[in-house]
Amino acid sequence: MSKYHVAPLDRLVEQFERLPGIGSKTAQRLAYFVLNMPKAQAEEFSHAIIDAHEKIRYCDVCCNFSDQERCSVCRSETRDKSLICVVETPRDAIAIEGTGDYHGTYHVLHGVISPLNGIGPDQLTIKELLSRLGGGEVSEVIMATNPTVEGEATAMYLSRLLKPLGVKVTRLAYGIPVGGDLEYADDMTLSRALEGRSEF
Amino acid sequence: MSKYHVAPLDRLVEQFERLPGIGSKTAQRLAYFVLNMPKAQAEEFSHAIIDAHEKIRYCDVCCNFSDQERCSVCRSETRDKSLICVVETPRDAIAIEGTGDYHGTYHVLHGVISPLNGIGPDQLTIKELLSRLGGGEVSEVIMATNPTVEGEATAMYLSRLLKPLGVKVTRLAYGIPVGGDLEYADDMTLSRALEGRSEF
Repeated sequence: MSKYHVAPLDRLVEQFERLPGIGSKTAQRLAYFVLNMPKAQAEEFSHAIIDAHEKIRYCDVCCNFSDQERCSVCRSETRDKSLICVVETPRDAIAIEGTGDYHGTYHVLHGVISPLNGIGPDQLTIKELLSRLGGGEVSEVIMATNPTVEGEATAMYLSRLLKPLGVKVTRLAYGIPVGGDLEYADDMTLSRALEGRSEF
Repeated sequence: MSKYHVAPLDRLVEQFERLPGIGSKTAQRLAYFVLNMPKAQAEEFSHAIIDAHEKIRYCDVCCNFSDQERCSVCRSETRDKSLICVVETPRDAIAIEGTGDYHGTYHVLHGVISPLNGIGPDQLTIKELLSRLGGGEVSEVIMATNPTVEGEATAMYLSRLLKPLGVKVTRLAYGIPVGGDLEYADDMTLSRALEGRSEF
C-alpha cells in the first residue's frame, strides 16, 4: 500500500474493507466518496448506522427485524395469521414479500442448524416458533429455508418437531427456475422437477 | 420493492444506495451486515465517517487531504521539494506513491477544467500551485492529469501558465502499458508510443 497516510481516512477505508464483497480498491473509492459528501449527508450516513443498531430489535412474535414490539406484518390486520412461512433470514422474508403473492406471516430463524459451525437448534428461534403454535390458531407452516444441505436438514428437523402438534407442514416447490434453461439445469434440480411434476 | 418496512433499516439501505457502484441488492446486503455487527463495531464505523469529515482538511501547501496543516509528504524532510507532480485527485497521488519511485511532492487540483460541467480554472487549486512557484525553489512540474480530453486540456492550460515563470514543465509518458498486448492497443496509444520511442 501507499506511504501516503492520513489516519482518519485510513480508518474509514478499513471500515469499508470489512464489509462483505468490498475489496481494498472499492473501499478506497467509497471512503473518498464519503469524504467528498456534504457534511450534512455524511452525518446522516453516520447516524443511520447507529440508529439502525439502537432502534431495530426482533419482533416479539416472528423474530424478524422491527422497530416496534411487533413487526409491520405481525401488526397487520389483513395478514393471514393461520399461515407461517419459516425463513432463515430477514432478507429471505423480504424476497418472499417481493412476490406480492404471500399474505401469511413469517418466522425468522436467524440461521440454520449447522453442526460444523457450532449452531444447534437452541441458537435459532425455534422456541419462539413452537410458542406460536400453542394457541391452535396456526393451520399451516411453510418451510422456506434455502435448498442447501443445512437448510434441508433444518426444515426436516422442524417438520418432525411440528407434525406431532397437528399442524400441516409444507415445503416450497423445487423445480426449474422460470426462464431457466433445461440444458443448464443441474441433475438434482431436474430430478426434483420431475418428481414434483403437475398435471396440465 | 418489498412491503415489509423497518424505517431505520430502510434509511440505512438508502445511505448505502447513494454510494457509487452500489446497487439496491448490494445496499441491502451491506445494511444487514452492518446491522448484524457487534454494536461497538457499528459505532466505530459511524464514528469513522464523522471523524474523517471533521479531521481531514486540505494540506496548506499541496491541497492533498491531510489531518494536519501540512500533509505527510509536504512535512517530510526526505522529499524533493524542487519537484511537483500535479494530479487531479488524492487517489491519483496515492497511485503514484504506490510505485515507490517518486520522491518529489504533489499538487492536487481536485478536478479538471471542464466547461461542460461548469468547472473553470478558478474552481481548481491553480492559485495555490502558482504561489508555490514564487519562491524559486521549484525546478520542475510534472503534469500527471489523466490522459482524457479534459485532463489533457488542463495540463496544456497549466503548462502555458507555468512556462513563462521559468519552470520546466513535463508530462507523464504515453505508451503501451507494461504487459499489454500490441494487438489490442488503440491507435491513439500506439501512435503516441511510436512518437515517444526511445533508444536502446
